[in-house]
Amino acid sequence: MKTKNKILKIGLPKGSLQESTLKLFRKAGYHITVSPRSYYPVFDDKEIEAMLIRAQEMARYVESGILDCGLTGYDWIMEQAADVKEVAELNYAKEGLRPVKWVIAVPADSKIKSVRDLRGKRIATELVGYTKRYLRAKNIKAEIDFSWGATEVKPPHLADAIVELTETGTSLRANNLRIVETILESSTRFISNRHAWQDRWKRQKMENIVMLLKGALAAEEKVGIKMNVQKKDLKRVMSLLPAMHSPTISALSDAGWYDLDVVMDEKILIDLIPRLKKAGASGIVEYQLNKVIP
Amino acid sequence: MKTKNKILKIGLPKGSLQESTLKLFRKAGYHITVSPRSYYPVFDDKEIEAMLIRAQEMARYVESGILDCGLTGYDWIMEQAADVKEVAELNYAKEGLRPVKWVIAVPADSKIKSVRDLRGKRIATELVGYTKRYLRAKNIKAEIDFSWGATEVKPPHLADAIVELTETGTSLRANNLRIVETILESSTRFISNRHAWQDRWKRQKMENIVMLLKGALAAEEKVGIKMNVQKKDLKRVMSLLPAMHSPTISALSDAGWYDLDVVMDEKILIDLIPRLKKAGASGIVEYQLNKVIP
Amino acid sequence: MKTKNKILKIGLPKGSLQESTLKLFRKAGYHITVSPRSYYPVFDDKEIEAMLIRAQEMARYVESGILDCGLTGYDWIMEQAADVKEVAELNYAKEGLRPVKWVIAVPADSKIKSVRDLRGKRIATELVGYTKRYLRAKNIKAEIDFSWGATEVKPPHLADAIVELTETGTSLRANNLRIVETILESSTRFISNRHAWQDRWKRQKMENIVMLLKGALAAEEKVGIKMNVQKKDLKRVMSLLPAMHSPTISALSDAGWYDLDVVMDEKILIDLIPRLKKAGASGIVEYQLNKVIP
Amino acid sequence: MKTKNKILKIGLPKGSLQESTLKLFRKAGYHITVSPRSYYPVFDDKEIEAMLIRAQEMARYVESGILDCGLTGYDWIMEQAADVKEVAELNYAKEGLRPVKWVIAVPADSKIKSVRDLRGKRIATELVGYTKRYLRAKNIKAEIDFSWGATEVKPPHLADAIVELTETGTSLRANNLRIVETILESSTRFISNRHAWQDRWKRQKMENIVMLLKGALAAEEKVGIKMNVQKKDLKRVMSLLPAMHSPTISALSDAGWYDLDVVMDEKILIDLIPRLKKAGASGIVEYQLNKVIP
Amino acid sequence: MKTKNKILKIGLPKGSLQESTLKLFRKAGYHITVSPRSYYPVFDDKEIEAMLIRAQEMARYVESGILDCGLTGYDWIMEQAADVKEVAELNYAKEGLRPVKWVIAVPADSKIKSVRDLRGKRIATELVGYTKRYLRAKNIKAEIDFSWGATEVKPPHLADAIVELTETGTSLRANNLRIVETILESSTRFISNRHAWQDRWKRQKMENIVMLLKGALAAEEKVGIKMNVQKKDLKRVMSLLPAMHSPTISALSDAGWYDLDVVMDEKILIDLIPRLKKAGASGIVEYQLNKVIP
Amino acid sequence: MKTKNKILKIGLPKGSLQESTLKLFRKAGYHITVSPRSYYPVFDDKEIEAMLIRAQEMARYVESGILDCGLTGYDWIMEQAADVKEVAELNYAKEGLRPVKWVIAVPADSKIKSVRDLRGKRIATELVGYTKRYLRAKNIKAEIDFSWGATEVKPPHLADAIVELTETGTSLRANNLRIVETILESSTRFISNRHAWQDRWKRQKMENIVMLLKGALAAEEKVGIKMNVQKKDLKRVMSLLPAMHSPTISALSDAGWYDLDVVMDEKILIDLIPRLKKAGASGIVEYQLNKVIP
Repeated sequence: MKTKNKILKIGLPKGSLQESTLKLFRKAGYHITVSPRSYYPVFDDKEIEAMLIRAQEMARYVESGILDCGLTGYDWIMEQAADVKEVAELNYAKEGLRPVKWVIAVPADSKIKSVRDLRGKRIATELVGYTKRYLRAKNIKAEIDFSWGATEVKPPHLADAIVELTETGTSLRANNLRIVETILESSTRFISNRHAWQDRWKRQKMENIVMLLKGALAAEEKVGIKMNVQKKDLKRVMSLLPAMHSPTISALSDAGWYDLDVVMDEKILIDLIPRLKKAGASGIVEYQLNKVIP
Repeated sequence: MKTKNKILKIGLPKGSLQESTLKLFRKAGYHITVSPRSYYPVFDDKEIEAMLIRAQEMARYVESGILDCGLTGYDWIMEQAADVKEVAELNYAKEGLRPVKWVIAVPADSKIKSVRDLRGKRIATELVGYTKRYLRAKNIKAEIDFSWGATEVKPPHLADAIVELTETGTSLRANNLRIVETILESSTRFISNRHAWQDRWKRQKMENIVMLLKGALAAEEKVGIKMNVQKKDLKRVMSLLPAMHSPTISALSDAGWYDLDVVMDEKILIDLIPRLKKAGASGIVEYQLNKVIP
Repeated sequence: MKTKNKILKIGLPKGSLQESTLKLFRKAGYHITVSPRSYYPVFDDKEIEAMLIRAQEMARYVESGILDCGLTGYDWIMEQAADVKEVAELNYAKEGLRPVKWVIAVPADSKIKSVRDLRGKRIATELVGYTKRYLRAKNIKAEIDFSWGATEVKPPHLADAIVELTETGTSLRANNLRIVETILESSTRFISNRHAWQDRWKRQKMENIVMLLKGALAAEEKVGIKMNVQKKDLKRVMSLLPAMHSPTISALSDAGWYDLDVVMDEKILIDLIPRLKKAGASGIVEYQLNKVIP
Repeated sequence: MKTKNKILKIGLPKGSLQESTLKLFRKAGYHITVSPRSYYPVFDDKEIEAMLIRAQEMARYVESGILDCGLTGYDWIMEQAADVKEVAELNYAKEGLRPVKWVIAVPADSKIKSVRDLRGKRIATELVGYTKRYLRAKNIKAEIDFSWGATEVKPPHLADAIVELTETGTSLRANNLRIVETILESSTRFISNRHAWQDRWKRQKMENIVMLLKGALAAEEKVGIKMNVQKKDLKRVMSLLPAMHSPTISALSDAGWYDLDVVMDEKILIDLIPRLKKAGASGIVEYQLNKVIP
Repeated sequence: MKTKNKILKIGLPKGSLQESTLKLFRKAGYHITVSPRSYYPVFDDKEIEAMLIRAQEMARYVESGILDCGLTGYDWIMEQAADVKEVAELNYAKEGLRPVKWVIAVPADSKIKSVRDLRGKRIATELVGYTKRYLRAKNIKAEIDFSWGATEVKPPHLADAIVELTETGTSLRANNLRIVETILESSTRFISNRHAWQDRWKRQKMENIVMLLKGALAAEEKVGIKMNVQKKDLKRVMSLLPAMHSPTISALSDAGWYDLDVVMDEKILIDLIPRLKKAGASGIVEYQLNKVIP
Repeated sequence: MKTKNKILKIGLPKGSLQESTLKLFRKAGYHITVSPRSYYPVFDDKEIEAMLIRAQEMARYVESGILDCGLTGYDWIMEQAADVKEVAELNYAKEGLRPVKWVIAVPADSKIKSVRDLRGKRIATELVGYTKRYLRAKNIKAEIDFSWGATEVKPPHLADAIVELTETGTSLRANNLRIVETILESSTRFISNRHAWQDRWKRQKMENIVMLLKGALAAEEKVGIKMNVQKKDLKRVMSLLPAMHSPTISALSDAGWYDLDVVMDEKILIDLIPRLKKAGASGIVEYQLNKVIP
């Protein structure tokens, strides 16, 4: 297959996920300019052409080949029933597309106890397509209405049940709703058009982007640690370090001393540092990382 | 027909129109409490039960009788093809639901010149139902995709044409789009369920609400004017006043003097006041109005 | 008693009540300048010297004569056990010093069920003086600690019970506290030093201030209404108007017509206006009021 | 003299005075649209063409006839030594162009005690032209430097003295400066080009604008007062009212009662209302005014 | 002594110091969640239970054992006259608990010149207990009033003198007050309950926390520096480095070159870097540190 | 030449450039305190005395020796025709004094096509001095008016042409202006007084400051990269690294492995990292730099 132009067309999710997505790409090393009101972020990598698209519509345009690839949720891939290649799962948890669930929920005092009880009921949801297919597979007929939002306040007057996104369940509880069943779990995916994935140049380009994005994500939970250790304490100190992260050990000019430099999960440090010090490490220094690529 | 409970269920548009709608009801005299995150504004009139609903869905729930009445746009009544009674048109122009148009727009350099050229094209819009019926009536087949927003940036890559809302055309021009045809004009309507309209108590209640809303709207463009006029100048001064607004003329205790008090369009005053003064009016005073009911 | 200088020294509550108090005085007709960081608001009435003082301390300074008068809560008058003259109660409910309660509260699962169970317990409160006297009168000995704030989080570790201010009970419930008893209800008072109240000039000055403050408060709930009525409908229209507000009726020059002008509670209008119109009133106009003094 | 087009070109001061000026025109009755970044406010009166111009430059352009008229400070008229017609002084004190002073100021410990001591010194100011003429008239030679701002921090290193605008003296004191002499007092003026003033149509147009602006300014300090008075008290109540504002007295249908309606300075009310009430007035009501034209 | 549960209860100062304290703990490595309105920050270290307490009250609760330890100011330890173990002084100067002074201040023109002149005077302060003990030790009787705040505006009408916190003296000068004497200097302390300090597990836990907090504080003033040095320049470059920070020296593969890596006070760099370069160092690179533990 | 005091007086640009300038100095290592409203930033280096001065006036005060040195634009050096030593050009592009152009611009439909057509025309500009000299050199006589701002809205009524600053041309286009010629390009300069430059101590001090400022600027575009490489891959990996940045290669204790540490342009990383990994590098870690001095 021949590639003209060497251009990769990528879709970025517009809306609530936009800022955290751009931040992740920037940490990965891309310089991106977004003009106010423009839908075309400009990358300093001239081989990338980006477009902001609603997460709901992403898979549709990747499938049709208008875009070579894009980032969106697994839920909207399923809603569109789109035939695309899933390249990677990316959990940028703190601010963005963390794993979420779509659940069937009903008023706390409803007689609906299981999916079977939905027969003949009115269900409001933004996820009309997937919900219809899910119920059809279980041979359940119900009326599924598209909801423009505020879905969780519709029962009991405007709907008997809803299919709605939930992270912590707070909003459901606040509206006095009870979860009947989880019908879909979702997280962010990097997806590719199937033809684009066959193109060697485009595939390589996408794999590079994913490597850098993962490197930036990994760095958020890790730090660099340096320390000085005498030869006699080296074994003891080494035994405290997590096995998976092998340190760089340089012999210092000062005889009998070694310098250890190691990348570590930040969250174990409050326990580890006092123990390292007790084991003989001194001059312990912690520094921040931008990217970690194994 | 018998009415239980004497409760009128009214839907108010949630979202961008919410604030201007509540402000209008408050000016009309209703005291309304809206708790943060609640969808049920509480009226001090215990016979009214209100609910915040997206304008897009309003007509659906008024038609089905879940709501007795509501405020929404004519466009969404048409999109839902809902069988409801239109009670009044309410143009609260300055901040809210001013008359808008839905137009078919294409890229400025597109070959599409008229509606007929849409045959076989891909059209993105939030107004899927009305657009389908409009084209079907003209015997034109096209692919109509639901758009989750940012519709005006979709041509030419993601769509050949769009059907989109426009007020001033600014956003269309900024995206280099050309209007092919206006297919729907819309303004805000107060609509009633057909059964509720047959109920004497509910109908009276709705007519009272509409009277007060219109009284508050009318007051926005009018002011009260008082002035003192001598008997000899009375005819001349009277001839300057717009015919439709007859003034209250009180004979003052001070012989030969009259006090005129009249309600007037605010916008004619910059011309009228100098002429009134020249015609003999003195002590001209302007005061604001909350409500004007003819 | 002789008065030099003719100066009335008034204390205004500093802090959360400051803005609503100044707004009320301004509506009453006083022009007040408050420089940032200054504690001496300047009145355009040169006979008034004002000072911003914490509500907690107000009664103390009024009692001692440093101030002639001031506004504060009944609770802080009681806490200080101050011997002052209460001139008036002022409920500027919407934004300010609305009636509040001081309650004894304990953890929801505490064994303390009544005031008697407080014997020997540790109680945290900002209202130390009143609480001590209240318990002493009931012959209950307990340890009363002054609390610098955040009182409601002190039980169960830092205190067995608290005496705390509550309006809606929300904060108590959020901290899982149960109310044992209400020991004090409070609202805003205009208080005077007893000597100042004997001074004829100062007393007259205070009575005038209170009259204007009450006039401004009354106007918040009232509006002016004008309408035209034919002689034949006059009786019917008059019968609809609330008895306590007698209208000004002017005979118009246009024979057979009358102009009614009446001050009314704003909240009855949504019911009254439709009925007035049905009874023959036309040209109904509503206008706002700054002050209403009976 | 013949007038083509019937267009009046008016300059409005750009910058810190812009908002208060537009607010005043709006209160006078003009509907004005200002697009962000545009310097051409659009009036709904098609005979008026407006332009935003810095107050410093206004007189220059009115003198040359580029503008027919404009609003600016007396100081900048003097600085430009412009030959224009002063039509009116407009003190919109609360928020805008209040009377200000230009003073000569020196470091608190400077040996300069009077204007004579400025001989041979270096003076920094934004008001170069007027300052030069002022000193020349007193036969004092000094070096006058134009200052781009932050003038008050220049002494003693960057200048020996400054000529600077001051309202309260706060900024001068904060920089430890002492006032030597006031050389100019200034307030806002409505000015006209001399030729435009000879044009009958333009002159009439300007006089109308000034009448409405003054009417709006007057209303800021006045309110309407209504009250009911019995015949026996009428004389006594009337004697309390300021002579210049004669009330409208309507005989009520209720025999023996009169309704007084009068426009009054708002600031005398805190004294007057208690006295009116004592004299027999009842049902005193105060309402707000938009415009007062004598 | 036996320890159940292995839980350390720590108090964090609520109010103005809260944010800088939490930031310091986070930099030390703790992940802390603070729900709005909750007084119980949640640590990811399950052995720590934290509580937000006003600095004024901290020592009281640490002394009584309700808390094992806490952070507060030396002034409030003294005010409470609390018997606690001072574990460490922590000066997180830039944003938080910087060393402050409590001073006796009087009106600038007061006759009070020394502490002795306070005999029989009225003193307002928030630091009642310490002030009383301080004066008693000097055999001076005075009336000490608790002040709810705004203490510095009380003299001369409401108090003869105050005892008040001051950092720069700005607020005192703005209120025209003169300092008579400094009676207490204060900085932040990490304090422990005396029994908890005897418990081996708790003491180790506190020492670890203090080590990490100090490591995070130290890192704010230090940076890492790397440079390349030829063998012949090594001695000269080494002699420039501060003695206390011995560098890590790695022999590079490139013969004759060494890589130096050293942690240094950031503030000496503006002088040191030019001298290092002159001494032969090249490729000087500075990087930031999160923690520095000797 | 002898130096007293050893004080370097430096001017920093006040206004829009102030924040980015202070940020650059702070990154260079200076601790600077700026009190609100003060014009004297305090450096922790006691040999430096700084002052905030408008960029327009900087060169004047450096030339006269009131300041030893300062930062300002080349344009304002030229405008002042100041005789100063240019020490360095500093492009702190992202937020501050990026290279800009001064252009002659005229209304789009003006007959002025070249500089020669300006003969006899009226030109408005803030850059009066330079513009006059520029035209005089070309033997063109025109009237040059000083403009207080909003220069770009002056044509065609208030001026025939302008000389104005432009970065992207947006503002010119928005006002429908056409560029005739660029007459000056400008960027930020560090300038010195000529006498100060002859003083050995001051010159050394300035050179050190410039070195640190440039080190901080360079670090904005660079990062540190570490990686582990096996002996067999070392040559291949090394060949990928940019020649100018020679890496620090440490032999690890683990035989056959090397640790590479290298400073690199951040912008090449998105291409380089995938290639390094393919060439055998592992454990790639990226970290941030504060300063890079070659």
